[in-house]
Amino acid sequence: MSPLSPVQQTVSEAHRLRLDPIATPDRLLLGPGPSNADPRVLQAISRPPLSHLDPLYLELMNEVQEMLRYAWQTDNRFTIPVSGTGSAAMEATIANCVEAGDTVVVGVIGYFGLRLVDMCGRYGANVVQINAPWGEALSLETIKAAVEEHKPAVLALVHAETSTGVWQPLDGIGEFCHAHDCLLLLDTVTSLGGVPLKLDELGVDLAYSCSQKGLSCPPGLGPFTMSARAEAKLDARKSKVPNWYLDMSGLKSYWGSQRTYHHTAPVNMNFGLREALRLLCEEGIENSWARHRRNSERLWDGLESQGLQLHVPVELRLPTLTTVRIPEGVDGKAFALHMLNAHGVEIGNGLGDLAGQVWRIGLMGTNSKPENVDRLLNLMEQELPAFRQTAAVA
Amino acid sequence: MSPLSPVQQTVSEAHRLRLDPIATPDRLLLGPGPSNADPRVLQAISRPPLSHLDPLYLELMNEVQEMLRYAWQTDNRFTIPVSGTGSAAMEATIANCVEAGDTVVVGVIGYFGLRLVDMCGRYGANVVQINAPWGEALSLETIKAAVEEHKPAVLALVHAETSTGVWQPLDGIGEFCHAHDCLLLLDTVTSLGGVPLKLDELGVDLAYSCSQKGLSCPPGLGPFTMSARAEAKLDARKSKVPNWYLDMSGLKSYWGSQRTYHHTAPVNMNFGLREALRLLCEEGIENSWARHRRNSERLWDGLESQGLQLHVPVELRLPTLTTVRIPEGVDGKAFALHMLNAHGVEIGNGLGDLAGQVWRIGLMGTNSKPENVDRLLNLMEQELPAFRQTAAVA
Repeated sequence: MSPLSPVQQTVSEAHRLRLDPIATPDRLLLGPGPSNADPRVLQAISRPPLSHLDPLYLELMNEVQEMLRYAWQTDNRFTIPVSGTGSAAMEATIANCVEAGDTVVVGVIGYFGLRLVDMCGRYGANVVQINAPWGEALSLETIKAAVEEHKPAVLALVHAETSTGVWQPLDGIGEFCHAHDCLLLLDTVTSLGGVPLKLDELGVDLAYSCSQKGLSCPPGLGPFTMSARAEAKLDARKSKVPNWYLDMSGLKSYWGSQRTYHHTAPVNMNFGLREALRLLCEEGIENSWARHRRNSERLWDGLESQGLQLHVPVELRLPTLTTVRIPEGVDGKAFALHMLNAHGVEIGNGLGDLAGQVWRIGLMGTNSKPENVDRLLNLMEQELPAFRQTAAVA
Repeated sequence: MSPLSPVQQTVSEAHRLRLDPIATPDRLLLGPGPSNADPRVLQAISRPPLSHLDPLYLELMNEVQEMLRYAWQTDNRFTIPVSGTGSAAMEATIANCVEAGDTVVVGVIGYFGLRLVDMCGRYGANVVQINAPWGEALSLETIKAAVEEHKPAVLALVHAETSTGVWQPLDGIGEFCHAHDCLLLLDTVTSLGGVPLKLDELGVDLAYSCSQKGLSCPPGLGPFTMSARAEAKLDARKSKVPNWYLDMSGLKSYWGSQRTYHHTAPVNMNFGLREALRLLCEEGIENSWARHRRNSERLWDGLESQGLQLHVPVELRLPTLTTVRIPEGVDGKAFALHMLNAHGVEIGNGLGDLAGQVWRIGLMGTNSKPENVDRLLNLMEQELPAFRQTAAVA
């Protein structure tokens, strides 16, 4: 079957579909993510692609890096969007800075802590798990005691647990880690852009996030950052990073001054991320944090005034994601599906330990505004009684 | 720094940029990729996102899978777009089906064969390299002899070498591999959609590609497929796949009937891929192959009539990517940069062994049309003489 063969090829028609153009509806995405993308971001994404080595694209990369530093409040030189989703950026932190045999203490306060445990195991770490019930945070004492006892190379914590809606306090943990020669790794998937977070002030060495929550961009990129301390650990590795795609020693040459080809960057997604970060720079990160808090408080008040119970105590509640207890007897999944199909509004179901127990309501990025809160509260008030009645009858 | 703190946060303004909206030009991308995306694809990408678990998105995933089977001419159940670029899909084939200690024979006819060698090494394979000079293909005899001698678990070949423009003949290799209990892994990054390719007829067990070449979509997704034979090898692994993001045993539950959450899919990129595959289904894959061949022949004739020399003998030339020898004394990089800056037309520079020796001209996907060939030929005729003169003077 030479490409030059003059004979017309015969092919199988088995999987040839004849489809209509895409006609997806415009949903209001108030689940755990993706959130809605800002229209300006969607417009940027649809520009004609450039080459990943085009001088204009290289300039755009610099801008994206710089604005990510702003969003994270870090001076880290090595701050880039990984060419995959948040989970890829999560794996990048571990693949690069955990070597087989390293001890890693992982704080598990929900589903994503367990994912960190799974990933660390795949990279040969000696994993020590410290746990809190799903809906609580770890105490600073528990964390410090684990670091003192196990002397880990890395302490991995989740700043904002997407499965529970819990915010993890971190006061003094960074300093404590560094005094114990340990890197601090932080999951900021559901906090970046929406929850007060200053990486350098906190002493965070490795962090990752996603594009589709606080940043109002579609999913597809995973912001990643590493401190000079983390870079030093990468440089001192005895073995190659056992993951080619996420190997930052290879990616350094592309993102640095050499601009050596590594892989073909998802250029259009990066067009979108640039615009998303521009929006954040326009608003001011501190104003974005305050807006997220304000709108969530409006949501919490409204839900509680409808007699609904919030799963997380107010002092640990995330301003980006709220977990609401499903009232006794109500079929939570059926209600969420009804909201989606009848009203085009998405709320999330519970995950892991909280499956069937809570709904997860996200107010992230451009979605965090009073109109959305009110629309959701009105719909809940209007629609939930029928589901409660069904429960009462059954 | 509690998210509930009533005090307005003070933040660093160090990395806060005030940028103009994105204003990238509309290039004609005739390099090794990305190629231009079809306008219909760009429109699809800019639709508001859906959740990755939305019933409408799950339906769209089925459509994408089915049309990828058509594009590859395979019945493989497990055919999906990986949530990363082509290199991620490449790594997925190896991460899942190569276990530490497995022998892998890799055919190296250029840069991407070397990348396979690097990746296989990271996954602990015993790698045997068989080489051809950059610009030639491996003979069927050489390949078969290596399989007979080394009895590999996997034979990895590059169907279309993007660094050299060479097409690798494969007649009978699939059968031969299966008779020797070996999986056949094939790089189809620069062939999918543009070069005659029927995976099942060839007996290919693992293949990967990208979105930004023959499929006319921006970069960001990596089509991946595995045969039942490859699935069996994955199922029989003694150890977990040492890569969480690309672990197909986890992804099976998301893409299969269970629809279990794995990671948040890049939904907008998949909107685009659906449209790109719709275009292919409209045209007919055999017509797309014929179109790519026709336009490349037009390019080859035009270049040769300008006295330029093609690097690859006609019987091994790819209809998607042409390598042209840079005339003696001409600064190839300077010429390519001039074409980009003065005319908005991108051609690629040489890579690896061919750096400084060739230009790489891609005619892929929507870009493969006579108008583009003629535009490029006219520009070469108009602009190259000045660069030849400089060479003569210097």
